[in-house]
Amino acid sequence: MNIRTPYLLFIGDASDPLSIKMAKSAADWSPEKCVGELAMPGCSVSTGLPRLSIEDAVERGAKSLVLGFANSGGTIDEKWLPTILHALNLGMDIVSGLHDKLEEFSPLKEAASRLQRQLINIRHPKEKFRTANGVKRTGKRLLTVGTDCSVGKMYTSLSLTKALRDNGVDATFRATGQCGILVSGSGIAIDCVVADFISGAAESLSPNAPASHWDIIEGQGSLSHPAFAGVSLGLLHGSQPDALVVCHALNRTHMRGLPHQAFPTLQDTIAMNEMQARLTNPSAKVIGVSLNSSSVSEEEALSVCAAISRETGLPCIDPMRHELTPILEALV
Amino acid sequence: MNIRTPYLLFIGDASDPLSIKMAKSAADWSPEKCVGELAMPGCSVSTGLPRLSIEDAVERGAKSLVLGFANSGGTIDEKWLPTILHALNLGMDIVSGLHDKLEEFSPLKEAASRLQRQLINIRHPKEKFRTANGVKRTGKRLLTVGTDCSVGKMYTSLSLTKALRDNGVDATFRATGQCGILVSGSGIAIDCVVADFISGAAESLSPNAPASHWDIIEGQGSLSHPAFAGVSLGLLHGSQPDALVVCHALNRTHMRGLPHQAFPTLQDTIAMNEMQARLTNPSAKVIGVSLNSSSVSEEEALSVCAAISRETGLPCIDPMRHELTPILEALV
Repeated sequence: MNIRTPYLLFIGDASDPLSIKMAKSAADWSPEKCVGELAMPGCSVSTGLPRLSIEDAVERGAKSLVLGFANSGGTIDEKWLPTILHALNLGMDIVSGLHDKLEEFSPLKEAASRLQRQLINIRHPKEKFRTANGVKRTGKRLLTVGTDCSVGKMYTSLSLTKALRDNGVDATFRATGQCGILVSGSGIAIDCVVADFISGAAESLSPNAPASHWDIIEGQGSLSHPAFAGVSLGLLHGSQPDALVVCHALNRTHMRGLPHQAFPTLQDTIAMNEMQARLTNPSAKVIGVSLNSSSVSEEEALSVCAAISRETGLPCIDPMRHELTPILEALV
Repeated sequence: MNIRTPYLLFIGDASDPLSIKMAKSAADWSPEKCVGELAMPGCSVSTGLPRLSIEDAVERGAKSLVLGFANSGGTIDEKWLPTILHALNLGMDIVSGLHDKLEEFSPLKEAASRLQRQLINIRHPKEKFRTANGVKRTGKRLLTVGTDCSVGKMYTSLSLTKALRDNGVDATFRATGQCGILVSGSGIAIDCVVADFISGAAESLSPNAPASHWDIIEGQGSLSHPAFAGVSLGLLHGSQPDALVVCHALNRTHMRGLPHQAFPTLQDTIAMNEMQARLTNPSAKVIGVSLNSSSVSEEEALSVCAAISRETGLPCIDPMRHELTPILEALV
């Protein structure tokens, strides 16, 4: 993939902060690659970057318009086509992390071809995968898993990778979703792989490595989510993690997108992930809890982390607020 | 799909009886649609149908050459291209249940186009699926699950559907793999669906139905198979089964294709499937065990079934040898 930078982050008319996670990830983890955000009337959320018009962005050097919003089906709404076409006309490539392919829309295909622009679908793997073989690989692996979707698995993985490197440990972040791929420049969007090859793709994502090397693998979905548990399980088996970190967001009342679906407990999430992980790595163990505490005060966050730590017997921190030391210590 | 019958079943140079399950399924469940089998030097297995040349088959009216073998990656070996081209030249369509698409091979694409023949990839869904919503549907559902791949889930499902209908129960077989689709003429090859949509596709496969109607859904893979558990879990969640039948093959020493991977116990398989199924249907229950006892004598089969029944507290039968009555009774 040759994604031209800097980006203009298109967030549409989003009103749910979780729905712009693609844009927010780039703004948070690669701000130096972003000139600003493009929002439409009705938009009530923000990446925190300056709000620009396409013209402003071009003037500031923007080379790619990143479709920075997401929805459950990963579709591109036709109402955004004029905006996307305008960006193409003004010289930008288009980067999408949605299921729908950009070239499926003939006006985009035609304009990109005529103007010699790139339409980049980072979610669509180009490789052919093989089915998994379950054979244990060398090197060490940590996988983030979750009580739900969008609870902070990618942020936790990126934070852990950075903290390990800062401590002199050889570690590699392995992206499994469009946001992680946008931030890190490589990876496999595991939810876009054909079902038969989920575990095989996960095996290829973290190949044999030196004994002391850590792959920090971004988890996807949740074993307790009725729509995505299959993806989570295939990724878990193929990753063969030695260590698991359970990610959880405070104050969720139901599973993401499913008002009728109750939330699992942390204890159940820990037990189920350990049990399933041991199919391909008998020594797999949950070594910590990563809490997304953004819905409460600093003080309350500390007290909730302490309570979770007592309840689970595991270190619990919010990687966006606290030092990661307790989890790093549990790792080594 | 408009698959022209009768079929000539191509089994290549297979030596593993399980690898020709596509051909064997058609021979066993739709013999009236098959003229015979086509085998190459080295082939040491058979569907039981007469062995014919392509010329013989054409003379007997064959309209489609069915690629009746399978392998773990679902690939088409280039060494079969001359045979497939010969069948096209003599007037046949080609039907494949492999991952590789027939038209990816340019000589096939060119010949089919020139000769106006169909290249049918029954494993490749043409629909766009949505992600699952986990909302409970009306009607009743039974899903076959397994200790492993290729243990008899499709045969059990077809047998159960037939037995229910013979007993005046309104029942529909729902195919989830290429063999079931070939036999029944419709269905979704669930292992070919993009990972994000496994459960959503499974939800669409068995839609709302009258309260007394049973969908008998063909299971895939096994929660204990490192390569395919994600597919099995997504199918389990989307199917929302009221009843589960665990399928098991006697005398397997390891998981299919993975010599290093130990076999799960029946008790563990029952417990794990019930636990996972209850995420989307809290009353899901394993109601019986279906044993593939083809590796032992009639007498031994009866005694093993009795032992399993004592051990699990569930009816246990081999649907290819015994009456299905004990399982039907457990259903109603």
